Amino acid sequence: MWEQNIRQVVPYVPGEQPKDENKIKLNTNEFPYPPSPKVLQALQDVSLDSLRLYPDPAVVDLRQALADAYQVELEQVFVGVGSDDVIANAFLTFFHSEKPILFPDITYSFYDVWADLFRIPYKTKALDENFHMRKEDYYEENGGIIFPNPNAPTGIGEGLGFIEDILQHNPNSVVIVDEAYVDFGGSSALPLLEKYENLLVVQTFSKSRALAGMRIGYAFGNKKLIGYLNAVKFSFNSYTMNRTSIAAGVACVQDNRYFEEMVQKVITTRERTKKALQELGFSFPDSTSNFIFATHKSVPAEELFEALKQAHIYVRYFKKPRIDNYLRITIGTDAEMDTLLAFLETYLKGR
Amino acid sequence: MWEQNIRQVVPYVPGEQPKDENKIKLNTNEFPYPPSPKVLQALQDVSLDSLRLYPDPAVVDLRQALADAYQVELEQVFVGVGSDDVIANAFLTFFHSEKPILFPDITYSFYDVWADLFRIPYKTKALDENFHMRKEDYYEENGGIIFPNPNAPTGIGEGLGFIEDILQHNPNSVVIVDEAYVDFGGSSALPLLEKYENLLVVQTFSKSRALAGMRIGYAFGNKKLIGYLNAVKFSFNSYTMNRTSIAAGVACVQDNRYFEEMVQKVITTRERTKKALQELGFSFPDSTSNFIFATHKSVPAEELFEALKQAHIYVRYFKKPRIDNYLRITIGTDAEMDTLLAFLETYLKGR
Repeated sequence: MWEQNIRQVVPYVPGEQPKDENKIKLNTNEFPYPPSPKVLQALQDVSLDSLRLYPDPAVVDLRQALADAYQVELEQVFVGVGSDDVIANAFLTFFHSEKPILFPDITYSFYDVWADLFRIPYKTKALDENFHMRKEDYYEENGGIIFPNPNAPTGIGEGLGFIEDILQHNPNSVVIVDEAYVDFGGSSALPLLEKYENLLVVQTFSKSRALAGMRIGYAFGNKKLIGYLNAVKFSFNSYTMNRTSIAAGVACVQDNRYFEEMVQKVITTRERTKKALQELGFSFPDSTSNFIFATHKSVPAEELFEALKQAHIYVRYFKKPRIDNYLRITIGTDAEMDTLLAFLETYLKGR
Repeated sequence: MWEQNIRQVVPYVPGEQPKDENKIKLNTNEFPYPPSPKVLQALQDVSLDSLRLYPDPAVVDLRQALADAYQVELEQVFVGVGSDDVIANAFLTFFHSEKPILFPDITYSFYDVWADLFRIPYKTKALDENFHMRKEDYYEENGGIIFPNPNAPTGIGEGLGFIEDILQHNPNSVVIVDEAYVDFGGSSALPLLEKYENLLVVQTFSKSRALAGMRIGYAFGNKKLIGYLNAVKFSFNSYTMNRTSIAAGVACVQDNRYFEEMVQKVITTRERTKKALQELGFSFPDSTSNFIFATHKSVPAEELFEALKQAHIYVRYFKKPRIDNYLRITIGTDAEMDTLLAFLETYLKGR
């Protein structure tokens, strides 16, 4: 039978995308405000006739816009279809030894998936009791290192000294820092690029840049590193970024003022939400991301998750060891957070 | 050194994308006419605010539009970022045995690349002296079969009987028919879907549907087969089709009248071009695709390729065994073909 020769995996159930019109969606860390209006203009400027032609496989326009915005050179920029695509390509390129790669036990849930997919051996390192990484865990021989900073779903950011320490101990490995959430108050490893040619910094348009719907991710590294990454990507799929995402990405990254204003707005809402949650009996690691990873002193997270869902408020709950009493709450608009907080207050009182 | 542990490939040089304003581009098999105007409308209807949200990972809207257009069920449709992405996912899912997969020696140039990338053993089978596949070559034990129909770069299409014969001899393998060019006069394997549950038919929006710039590919199979493919895809990258490509794809596939008219126009131009090329001393396999694979009775293909390029007319030349005296000429607009033919006539006379 033909089914004997195929890869059979447990079907993954994608995160809830409730159709519910009145829902409050705080479960996938999307940005609560629309992207820059210049993105709309850029999309409307794409000509119908241009769509019949393949896009630029080197994606020079978008890479140059990113290079300009972050003051690096074109050859230091890689782009892909979301940071998932960027990281998967980086796994294929940089984690190519027989030695295990290292990443935290509580972290982004796709690292082990890609390692399995590409048959890359790996070891996970337990976060400490406060959900911090222990830098000493990353001193042993390895085939590469990856971690998010700030980490997800904890929201905890480590400082530049921490990252540099790991780089100093790993001259023989590529170290990937996944900065999906860095714009909300984290410390970017970008200033270390000049000193460490084995550092790859990955970012995304899906969070702070409000373009999850367009699927754009990118990475910075020294020219040699990015050269290897582009060579692998080109070798098996030359055309992945479509014309509209290139146009949208360029317009988005060029409107820096809008970007900074909107991010600041989310940070302000987050800080206010932290205080309110504390008053309601929640505690959480101090988040520098666009979500809060909160646990309540007396009410189980799973119960709150279900109660919130009944009230059309969607947050994220992971039924996994060590974190099964936490809710990951995305920072929405002020109005959305007010609804969430009002519901929690009433629910906790009435219990 | 970190470079010891990484994957180093020979950098691939993407096909020429000349910036030349007055060029005639007949080198990448793009469609010569714009997509349906309804695509533009659909893109303009995408709201700015929706872009901050992840797209539907199951891409139901586009899969349903394809299901309706081809009279199959939603669960029989898979979509991806171009047919390259669809086929790469199919390799990962269906070619998972230790036995070699089989494909023609002269064919789409990415099959061996994906096999190498995913460590899938493979054997190529030589086309006969007229560039036809020999069906007996595909009777031996194998881990899967893939071939384009019509084949590229030859343009030769095989009939339904040929495909059914291969399916009958391979109940234990998945057989992938890559129909990128089928709309220009080939025989689609779609009618065989009901009878053979190990058949996957792959098509694309990049050729006949004039949307190469949007990166959309799709595949049909029975529900079980498509279920396996979706499970693998979801397991490692849930969000790949962005909101604009979903919107553009739906609008495109729904405007069937425009599609058929435009394809007929290209076919008419192709048939006229065949006659004119013959009169100029060219011969070629009878193409049922949107290109002609032509060789001249006395002038080397490489010389013609260079001369055409000097005249800003770009065709494709492969410096590879067996086909290094052929040019692959995409069918452009009537005006473009007239310019090509006029240049060739003058060049061949003046030589």
